[in-house]
Amino acid sequence: MEKSSRCISISLILLLYLVPSCLSRKPNIIVMLMDDMGWGDLGSYGHPARETPNLDRMAAEGMLFTDFYSAAGICSPSRASVMTGRLPIRNGFYSTNQFAKNSYLPQDVMGGISDSEVLFPELLKQNGYRNKIVGKWHLGHREQFLPLQHGFDEWFGAPDCHYKYDDKVMPNIPVYKDSLMQGRYYDHFKIDIKTGLSNLTQLYIQEALDFLEKERDRPFFLYWAPDATHTPLYASEKFRGKSERGLYGDAVMELDSGVGKILNKLKELGIENNTFAFFSSDNGAATYAFTEVSIIISGGSNGPFLCGKQTTFEGGMREPALAWWPTKIRPGSISKQVGNLMDIFSTVLKITSIPHPKGLYLDGVDLSSVLFNSKEFDRPVFYYRNDALFKVRYGQYKAHFYTWDTPEDAQRLGYHYCPGQFVPKVTTALLTNYTDQPLLFHLGKDPGEKFIIDASSVEYSIAMKQISSVVKEHLRTLVRGEPQFDWCDLAVQNWSPSGCEKINSCFTAPLSYPYRCHWPY
Amino acid sequence: MEKSSRCISISLILLLYLVPSCLSRKPNIIVMLMDDMGWGDLGSYGHPARETPNLDRMAAEGMLFTDFYSAAGICSPSRASVMTGRLPIRNGFYSTNQFAKNSYLPQDVMGGISDSEVLFPELLKQNGYRNKIVGKWHLGHREQFLPLQHGFDEWFGAPDCHYKYDDKVMPNIPVYKDSLMQGRYYDHFKIDIKTGLSNLTQLYIQEALDFLEKERDRPFFLYWAPDATHTPLYASEKFRGKSERGLYGDAVMELDSGVGKILNKLKELGIENNTFAFFSSDNGAATYAFTEVSIIISGGSNGPFLCGKQTTFEGGMREPALAWWPTKIRPGSISKQVGNLMDIFSTVLKITSIPHPKGLYLDGVDLSSVLFNSKEFDRPVFYYRNDALFKVRYGQYKAHFYTWDTPEDAQRLGYHYCPGQFVPKVTTALLTNYTDQPLLFHLGKDPGEKFIIDASSVEYSIAMKQISSVVKEHLRTLVRGEPQFDWCDLAVQNWSPSGCEKINSCFTAPLSYPYRCHWPY
Repeated sequence: MEKSSRCISISLILLLYLVPSCLSRKPNIIVMLMDDMGWGDLGSYGHPARETPNLDRMAAEGMLFTDFYSAAGICSPSRASVMTGRLPIRNGFYSTNQFAKNSYLPQDVMGGISDSEVLFPELLKQNGYRNKIVGKWHLGHREQFLPLQHGFDEWFGAPDCHYKYDDKVMPNIPVYKDSLMQGRYYDHFKIDIKTGLSNLTQLYIQEALDFLEKERDRPFFLYWAPDATHTPLYASEKFRGKSERGLYGDAVMELDSGVGKILNKLKELGIENNTFAFFSSDNGAATYAFTEVSIIISGGSNGPFLCGKQTTFEGGMREPALAWWPTKIRPGSISKQVGNLMDIFSTVLKITSIPHPKGLYLDGVDLSSVLFNSKEFDRPVFYYRNDALFKVRYGQYKAHFYTWDTPEDAQRLGYHYCPGQFVPKVTTALLTNYTDQPLLFHLGKDPGEKFIIDASSVEYSIAMKQISSVVKEHLRTLVRGEPQFDWCDLAVQNWSPSGCEKINSCFTAPLSYPYRCHWPY
Repeated sequence: MEKSSRCISISLILLLYLVPSCLSRKPNIIVMLMDDMGWGDLGSYGHPARETPNLDRMAAEGMLFTDFYSAAGICSPSRASVMTGRLPIRNGFYSTNQFAKNSYLPQDVMGGISDSEVLFPELLKQNGYRNKIVGKWHLGHREQFLPLQHGFDEWFGAPDCHYKYDDKVMPNIPVYKDSLMQGRYYDHFKIDIKTGLSNLTQLYIQEALDFLEKERDRPFFLYWAPDATHTPLYASEKFRGKSERGLYGDAVMELDSGVGKILNKLKELGIENNTFAFFSSDNGAATYAFTEVSIIISGGSNGPFLCGKQTTFEGGMREPALAWWPTKIRPGSISKQVGNLMDIFSTVLKITSIPHPKGLYLDGVDLSSVLFNSKEFDRPVFYYRNDALFKVRYGQYKAHFYTWDTPEDAQRLGYHYCPGQFVPKVTTALLTNYTDQPLLFHLGKDPGEKFIIDASSVEYSIAMKQISSVVKEHLRTLVRGEPQFDWCDLAVQNWSPSGCEKINSCFTAPLSYPYRCHWPY
């Protein structure tokens, strides 16, 4: 009798502990992905302008990564990799038209995110999450490619970049609310190219805050993807002219204030201890960002690194990255773990206890041991430029198989990816093939990729042996996805998005005439 | 009667308030000046290696300056400016031998700090301070120039750089305790050039801690000037091989630990609230730092700035600068005030309530309103390269009157001041004169000095008008000091410093044969 009553007591005590954990809510997920913001743009990453008090506080309350990478030096491929956890070469966000020239998703591209790709918001949705994207999608603008077809419940934002078009040869880009266009950039959502004035970031901040309010009581995923730091740069009245470095700095300050508001809202709602927030950028700062007024010098900062967006030098793919989860991540921690935006996929699965889909090959890895237990482990970084494996990092060593600064076609368009920088044999004007004897760098001693390690040294042999074996294994298991950026057609542009009739903004598409896309980058 | 008793009460109350303030001790002063450490070398200034947890904590507890400068791009002139609050051109730390070539104080130079110069430690001493210098002096190695002749009560360290000599043509540099040599580098104080192993930084840390212990009860000034980040780099057993960036990073880590120990000692002694501590470096990181084993790539980082030591680009003269005074300086504050190492002089006078000496012209200004009241004000920066006014900053604008990357003579010695960087018209291989139409840059938008502002623009006219007037005023009031670096003589080297006989390390000087010093830099 005594025995059974003891047993009952123990069971009751166990129950008392177990029930709340069964009932405990899955954590909320927030991914804040900036557009063309550079590693060196944040105060906590050393920018002398110190325009990011909110991001610096996020770092002080969470974890800052020093060695975090994107999967591509340009937007669409990088963004597709975030969603799929897979390299662009695998998820199809590349082109076979011009070897090693960057490709992406301007509105005449026919391709987009394939139905065969698994996006992590789809898995979250299947597990009871409510998902919203605010801002830029860039995984395809045709109906079958849009966010609500790929795991999101809500959307406020645009499928493409906010370049200005004429609504004749090329229509202006639509701004969607969920599956219906609400208007177009310039026509309905104003961006003053001359002054850089636009209220868009304020709209994106408000959309995020409203979503948090609304979803406070159930698990949610917010993908916050504003684009004010992408050319043409913009800022709202309150921020324009406030920074010392022009419109780019104004945009950074406004985005920083948005991050502050989002994190504060979590605290205000009392859900901060159950929310994992991650901040990063899609690729290195564009060294050539411009407005109509101020050309070239309004670009962001890649700190001490070489070159910027479009390249596979550190400046093109090393990203600022902050992870934040009060009570779970130690405040003020700094991780030198080599991370990648593709890791968000596996990490989110892990912290939401969602099983890894069977048979799905991921390039990203789970970083939860880094976040919660300060672990560090070796893993390679593959730097692709479009369809070409340009460089590989393993440990502190980075091998260059190919080098290329700015292609001539791009120079003619006014681009320069490495202004003020010149490293003989490295920042080459022409595509240069070093696959026979890769250029090797030690990123610890030489983060700027300036000093080539002597190929006859013992150090070189040891490092290259390891890298070669990593590359061999990578290529052995690589299955290339169907290339999405090979074919273009003016007819597939945003002529008549759903909802256009309500706002009288439907345009007639020209006859379909597919052609090979040309990639000057 | 009532009236007089009230008056007495008031007097007593006043007395109660006034007496402690009369008795209150003057604040202690600590200046920690690193050697060739760059703006970008600290974690809090963005270095990806994040090797400076103690300095980052100092920043978090105090004030970080983003726009702080040295008065020269090379050691001796910069150090003389710290002590005198005056530009090298005024205090005599320059040469007229080769126009615009850097000069300093190798041991064959005949000159040094003039008796007519006022050093702020002299003023502190007159006001009851006990002053100690630990480490490198570099204001002259002949007896009349040594620290104890110029305001210091104690010294442990050396008059010159720790280069290796043969004790035949040139003797190794003495290490002094006060006015007596205790031994020489290499002969008695070991630095293993091959391995980079040396215990010197540990000695310098211990000397500082002992001084703080000893002087805890009276006002003191500690000038902590270790030199492990100056070529030939060194670190002690505990730190060597610990960083990911080689010996340079090891040295940074060891110096950082020293800063931590010094600040902790103040707390342990309970005098932290009465101590003003300032951390900086004498000039930009040498881009060419080397050991016998590892040439070139062991240099420090100047972050996003152009070039390094020896130059008047931002990389040569923008410095890390941290100010710390618990209860007086707001923790975690960041100042964009344009500061200069020469400001230490006036600031120290202000906070110690010592009057400014009559008739003494200072180039530095008092920064106390910045430190304690977050004020900011305009003031120019004059970038001299030896005897030549190369550049001027005022507000965010910087005008280049002359440009020069690496002189041919220096290139032949293996130097390169701007590796991996090349800005047409700016990083010129030859001395280039732009005084007719200066090159203008906006350091806010363009901290890397890459994008020349169009000379036909309105912006240019307005900025240059202001700068011209600042320069005119500067030149009008400029009185050049007697040049100290014109004459050299092998006989004036450290052959027989006081105390040499005790350790059997006196050498016979050659006959005096003065010659014009040659400056290849």
